[in-house]
Amino acid sequence: MTKISERGRILPASPIRKLAPLAENAKRNGIKVHHLNIGQPDLPTPEIALQELSKINRKTLEYSPSEGFLSLRERMAEYYKTLGAELSPSEIIITTGASEALLFGFMACMNEGDEMIITEPAYANYHSFAQMAGIKVTPLISKIENGFALPDIADFEALITPKTKAVLICNPNNPTGCTYSESELLKICELVKKYDLWLFADEVYREFFYSAEPHFSALKLAEIEQNVIVCDSFSKRYSECGIRVGALISRNKELLATVLKYCQARLSPPLLGQILAEVSFDAPASYLENVYNEYIERRNLLINGLNDIDGVFSPLPNGAFYTIAELPIDDCDKFCAWLLSDFSYEGQTVMLAPASGFYSNPENGKNQVRIAYVLEKEELKKALKVLEMGLKKYNSNENNF
Amino acid sequence: MTKISERGRILPASPIRKLAPLAENAKRNGIKVHHLNIGQPDLPTPEIALQELSKINRKTLEYSPSEGFLSLRERMAEYYKTLGAELSPSEIIITTGASEALLFGFMACMNEGDEMIITEPAYANYHSFAQMAGIKVTPLISKIENGFALPDIADFEALITPKTKAVLICNPNNPTGCTYSESELLKICELVKKYDLWLFADEVYREFFYSAEPHFSALKLAEIEQNVIVCDSFSKRYSECGIRVGALISRNKELLATVLKYCQARLSPPLLGQILAEVSFDAPASYLENVYNEYIERRNLLINGLNDIDGVFSPLPNGAFYTIAELPIDDCDKFCAWLLSDFSYEGQTVMLAPASGFYSNPENGKNQVRIAYVLEKEELKKALKVLEMGLKKYNSNENNF
Repeated sequence: MTKISERGRILPASPIRKLAPLAENAKRNGIKVHHLNIGQPDLPTPEIALQELSKINRKTLEYSPSEGFLSLRERMAEYYKTLGAELSPSEIIITTGASEALLFGFMACMNEGDEMIITEPAYANYHSFAQMAGIKVTPLISKIENGFALPDIADFEALITPKTKAVLICNPNNPTGCTYSESELLKICELVKKYDLWLFADEVYREFFYSAEPHFSALKLAEIEQNVIVCDSFSKRYSECGIRVGALISRNKELLATVLKYCQARLSPPLLGQILAEVSFDAPASYLENVYNEYIERRNLLINGLNDIDGVFSPLPNGAFYTIAELPIDDCDKFCAWLLSDFSYEGQTVMLAPASGFYSNPENGKNQVRIAYVLEKEELKKALKVLEMGLKKYNSNENNF
Repeated sequence: MTKISERGRILPASPIRKLAPLAENAKRNGIKVHHLNIGQPDLPTPEIALQELSKINRKTLEYSPSEGFLSLRERMAEYYKTLGAELSPSEIIITTGASEALLFGFMACMNEGDEMIITEPAYANYHSFAQMAGIKVTPLISKIENGFALPDIADFEALITPKTKAVLICNPNNPTGCTYSESELLKICELVKKYDLWLFADEVYREFFYSAEPHFSALKLAEIEQNVIVCDSFSKRYSECGIRVGALISRNKELLATVLKYCQARLSPPLLGQILAEVSFDAPASYLENVYNEYIERRNLLINGLNDIDGVFSPLPNGAFYTIAELPIDDCDKFCAWLLSDFSYEGQTVMLAPASGFYSNPENGKNQVRIAYVLEKEELKKALKVLEMGLKKYNSNENNF
């Protein structure tokens, strides 16, 4: 009997996927499920991008260049300039979502068996891409009690071995919503320089940064510019997850040439998505302002609401549209399943992402969940009420099994 | 200085890419370049797919399911039924082009260091994806003198080691245009069964099959149905290379579950491409008939024209839109570069793909080129004339350096 590869066998399935059938079942039973579990923005794609669809006037939907359209890369370079980073279009490679930028970046920078330090809780798919590339992830735990702030540099250093080739930071962070300041980035810069590491900076949530000081992109770390690889995406910024357009940005010519070889193997990034991504830059300023303001209002509503529930704690996240909250629950995997399979309040329930999936050692996240605020405020309010009632019922004697 | 990974360093760049700057330069010098080098069909995408673009009525361009839309997979199952293969939609996973199906399939089926037998000349990117997955390709040479027919099964068997986990066939073949008959497929079936191998069947050119007997899909090999992985794509069939929609098809539940985990890591295949792929099935029957007839006419024109040139030999390919031809040239890499950099005839030249890029050992293809017939017949005629004159000049004393 032909066998699945060992790596395929041990690749973890997305933990949230285990809950999906329970959610489907709840819906079939007429229960309204509030989805606090997903990273899909509910906000509309810019009108100008949607309208562009009917303007695409091509006879043949052909391959685009492996590195992406020059016109798109030029628009991106203009955009990075507004962030204070001077880049040439040749330093930007268009990828099929940030996902592909991560995978190709890992493969280009690290050999099998090399190590990469990632703060946790972390986006679960970093592990998947690392595993595809045969790389070992060395987790460094950030703590909920200080808002998942960047751990001390000494803690990073303690994890460095001769095999350590890279550090990955996600800023603003998925799943914590934590943001890293310029001074924290400068500390990372020192570390990267000292040990001559690659720095992967996932900045797909850059637009959603609610601190007083502006987002400080890793592209501005001039001292280590040869070591920095930024992964970017149009998915979250313009609510365009489906177009599958992201980018890998680097000033290291050898790295760019290597990533381009991987890109040539897969021929080209999506044609239609690139066309829409490019015109999205022409969305009126009010588009991103409205999205920004909406997320801040939702965040405030959600975090206040969570902290008002007995035994629940959430730090105030300063970025993205997620928070990791601590619940008065021993095993959130079980609780999240129970909410879908055994509970409803006024015909509703909530779907949460158990945080265990965001840690290498699932035990670290047993009493935590990730909550995304990609629902309208009125629905968020209802979801908070349902969560409160769910916690009460689950923790009452008769239901805590 | 941070280093590129060893695997990134040794990954070969696409050989055709080295010629691209020469072609650009020729165009800048006002020379018309006939592109016989590419795999991008020039024929139009079905009108119904192009029209669908303006009918997409969504407020948010969101993620689609990781396995692709059910409605698309249902349509594909109906289509495979017309080929004589009964499949459930759950046995079809939508991928970002056939490229992704190959990469994820390789990763799911083989461990690092495992071996896969591929007949050569072969599509160069099989090597790239194998290298990404850490797999060793064992090449088995097919010969131009018998039209690149499937080598004897004994030749396959001679290459099998305890590390051999898979055989890959491309039918119809890129780059040779060769097709494999039902009886050849049945021999492969015996081999796969005897050694319990995975069989990867790349069938993206299935529609372009000019033999008398119809294409026999590997999906019909019932005896080894648990071992068969078919890679498919909309790119060539509907001239939709840019939409990046392909598929991995298997009846092996464990394999499907493993590939799905890889698919979940990259979140989803392109949304817009899937919508267009689905409606493409509604293109009138005349669309594929016209494409088919056009390719046959072009093939006949091209192959006759090639064999009419002194010292040139091309077998008659029965599928796809390529042929591998032998030229009276010692080093086709140099000749193809010379055509672009040092030659023109009546203001024109031709760009060919040196066949060295399709062999593990480039020496095997030194006197061969791949020619794609994705140009209109009138242009093909001109290109043939230019090639004839180029060969004459190159082989005249003063220019053969």
